[in-house]
Amino acid sequence: MSITIKRLAQELNLSVSTISKALTDSHEISAETKQRVIQKAQELNYKPNPYASSLRGRKSKTIAVVLPEIADSFFSLAINGIEEAASEKGYHVLIYLTHESFLKEEAMLKDFQNGRVDGILISVSRETAGSTHIQEVIDRGIPVVFFDRIREDVSTAKFTTNDYESSYNATLHLLEKGCRNLSFLCISRDLLISNSRIQGYQQALKDKNMPEAETAVINCTNNAEENYRMIKALLSGKQRPDGIIASVEKLTNPVYLACQELQLRIPQDVKVLSFSNLETAPLLNPALTTVTQPAFDMGKAAANLLLKCLQKKHSILGKDTQVIPSTLIVRQSTV
Amino acid sequence: MSITIKRLAQELNLSVSTISKALTDSHEISAETKQRVIQKAQELNYKPNPYASSLRGRKSKTIAVVLPEIADSFFSLAINGIEEAASEKGYHVLIYLTHESFLKEEAMLKDFQNGRVDGILISVSRETAGSTHIQEVIDRGIPVVFFDRIREDVSTAKFTTNDYESSYNATLHLLEKGCRNLSFLCISRDLLISNSRIQGYQQALKDKNMPEAETAVINCTNNAEENYRMIKALLSGKQRPDGIIASVEKLTNPVYLACQELQLRIPQDVKVLSFSNLETAPLLNPALTTVTQPAFDMGKAAANLLLKCLQKKHSILGKDTQVIPSTLIVRQSTV
Repeated sequence: MSITIKRLAQELNLSVSTISKALTDSHEISAETKQRVIQKAQELNYKPNPYASSLRGRKSKTIAVVLPEIADSFFSLAINGIEEAASEKGYHVLIYLTHESFLKEEAMLKDFQNGRVDGILISVSRETAGSTHIQEVIDRGIPVVFFDRIREDVSTAKFTTNDYESSYNATLHLLEKGCRNLSFLCISRDLLISNSRIQGYQQALKDKNMPEAETAVINCTNNAEENYRMIKALLSGKQRPDGIIASVEKLTNPVYLACQELQLRIPQDVKVLSFSNLETAPLLNPALTTVTQPAFDMGKAAANLLLKCLQKKHSILGKDTQVIPSTLIVRQSTV
Repeated sequence: MSITIKRLAQELNLSVSTISKALTDSHEISAETKQRVIQKAQELNYKPNPYASSLRGRKSKTIAVVLPEIADSFFSLAINGIEEAASEKGYHVLIYLTHESFLKEEAMLKDFQNGRVDGILISVSRETAGSTHIQEVIDRGIPVVFFDRIREDVSTAKFTTNDYESSYNATLHLLEKGCRNLSFLCISRDLLISNSRIQGYQQALKDKNMPEAETAVINCTNNAEENYRMIKALLSGKQRPDGIIASVEKLTNPVYLACQELQLRIPQDVKVLSFSNLETAPLLNPALTTVTQPAFDMGKAAANLLLKCLQKKHSILGKDTQVIPSTLIVRQSTV
C-alpha cells in the first residue's frame, strides 16, 4: 500500500492542504513545519504521485528532456540521472529525440510554448547553429537548463564537463605513449563541446611541438556506413595514423571494426582512445581507454537545478556554467 | 527552406484543404487525387510538421512509447524503428520510462486516459502481473499495440519475436559444443518473454535427456551489484556451470566481469551466450555469441500498425500476434 498525503496529515495532525504546501516548499508554511513534514514523509517512505497533483494544479508537473539520440551511453546514463532527480520531486519526464535534426528541435521547442511542459533540459543537435528557438521558450517563462551540448549565446544555467582539458590530457597521454601521427575524429564544428575537444587536442600538439598533419581532424557524418568507409580509408592510407581519438562514443565501433578487417593490431599498430561511457569498454578486445564523462551526475545536477527553480515558481536561472570533470581511464588500447 | 502544404497546393492547383485531407487519407478525397498529392509531396520532399497539424486538429498527433529502460540496445534500436515510422507519417513520439516499476506504468496509463496522446506502444515492466490499466485505456478508445514484452490477456495487436524457439536453439548450440552443466539467467517469471525463453531452454535439455540441475534457472534482480554478486557466487561454486545463457543483455557484462575476476577463460572454462543487440558484441574479448532480436524492425512494424489504425480513425486492432524471428549469431564465446 502506498502512503498518501491524507495518511501523512493524520500522522502529523495537520491539514492535507498544509502537507501539500509544505511538500511543494510554499512560502505560506514555516520552515519548522516543512522540516517535520519532510521528516515524516521520508520515515513513511511517501512518494508523491505526479499525475494526481497535475490534475489538481495548473502545472503539468512534467519536464521535457530534448536530446539528439539515445543509442549512446552518455545520454542514456544522463536520462537515468534526470529521472532519479525528477522522481524524488514527484515530477514526470518526457523524452524528445531530435535525431540530430535542427528542424525537429525547433518544432519541439515551438510546441513547448503551448505549455505542454513546465521546464526543459536540452542538449542541442549537431545541426543547431542558432538559439532563437530556445530564447523564445525562455521568454515565455519556461525555464531551460542546458547539459553537455550547450549554447553559449543563451543566458541560462548550463552543465558541462571539462571537454578542453580532457581532450588536452588525452592527447598528451597518446604522445607520451609514443604516438607521432594522431588523428582526431569529430562530429560537428557547430557544437561547442566538439570545438572544445578539437582545441584541447590542437593545443596539446602545439605545446609538445608536434606538427599537425592536414588530415589530423576528421569530420564524421551522421551516417554510420559513411563513417566506417572514411575511417577504413584513413587506416588504409599511406599516412596511416598511429593513434586515434574518437571524440564521441559511436565512432569507436567503426575504428575497432576497421582495425579487425585491416588486421591492424590495437595498440601495437594503432592506439585508440574514445570519449565514451560504454559499459563494455573494459571488456573489449583490447579493453578501451576512455575519457569517461560524468553522465549520470550531470543529468541529475541539471535536473535538480531546474526542479528547484520550478518549485520556487520563478523561471529565471543564473547564467553560470557548472563544470563536472571527466576522468581519463587508461586501458590496454593505448598502452 | 522546407516545403509547405501551401506550396504543394500551388504546384497541384488544388486547395490547401484538399491537400491536407489527401495526406491524412481522408475518405472525402478520391484515390486518384491522393496518388497525385503523395507523388508530388515525395517529389518535393515535403515533410509534414506534426506540431502545426496538432494545433489545428483535435488530435495531438503524438504517440507514446512506454518501456522499462533505455540503457539497453534492444529498446534503443526499437525506438529508432518507431521514430522512423512516426516521422514518415508526421507523428511525434514521446518516450516514457517505467524503470521496471508497475506503479509508474499504471500512473502513466491513467494519465493517457486524459487524451495526452493518440495511441500507445508498450513493452511492459518486469513487475507487471495484470492488465487492467491497459484495458482501461483501450476502453477509452485509445489504441494500444504491444511489442516485445506483451500481455496475452489483452485483446489487441502484438509484435514479438520467437523467444521459445530462439532459446531452444541457443540451448542446443551449447549442448552441441559440449556443455553438460548449464545455467540460465532470467529476470522475471511474470514476463511472458522470460517464461518462453525458460521453457525453450528446459525443453531442449529434456529433448537431449540432460538432467536439469536445481540451480539451472537463476532469478536475477533489478540491482546490478546484487546480480554481479550472485553471478560471481555461481561461478565460484562447486557446481560451476560450463555454459551460461544470459536471457537479457544487461546480464552479459557481470558474467564477463566475474570471469575476468575469477580468471575463468571464456569459452574454455565457461561458454557464454546472450540475448543481446549489443553493438559491441563482435568486439568483446572474446566476441559474444548472441541471439540477436529484430529490435528496429519490431519497433517499426508495431508503430506502422498503430499509425495506420490512427489514420483510419478507428481504435480497434486485431488481436493477432506477429512474430519476427531472432537470429543466433555464433562467435568465439561459445566455440
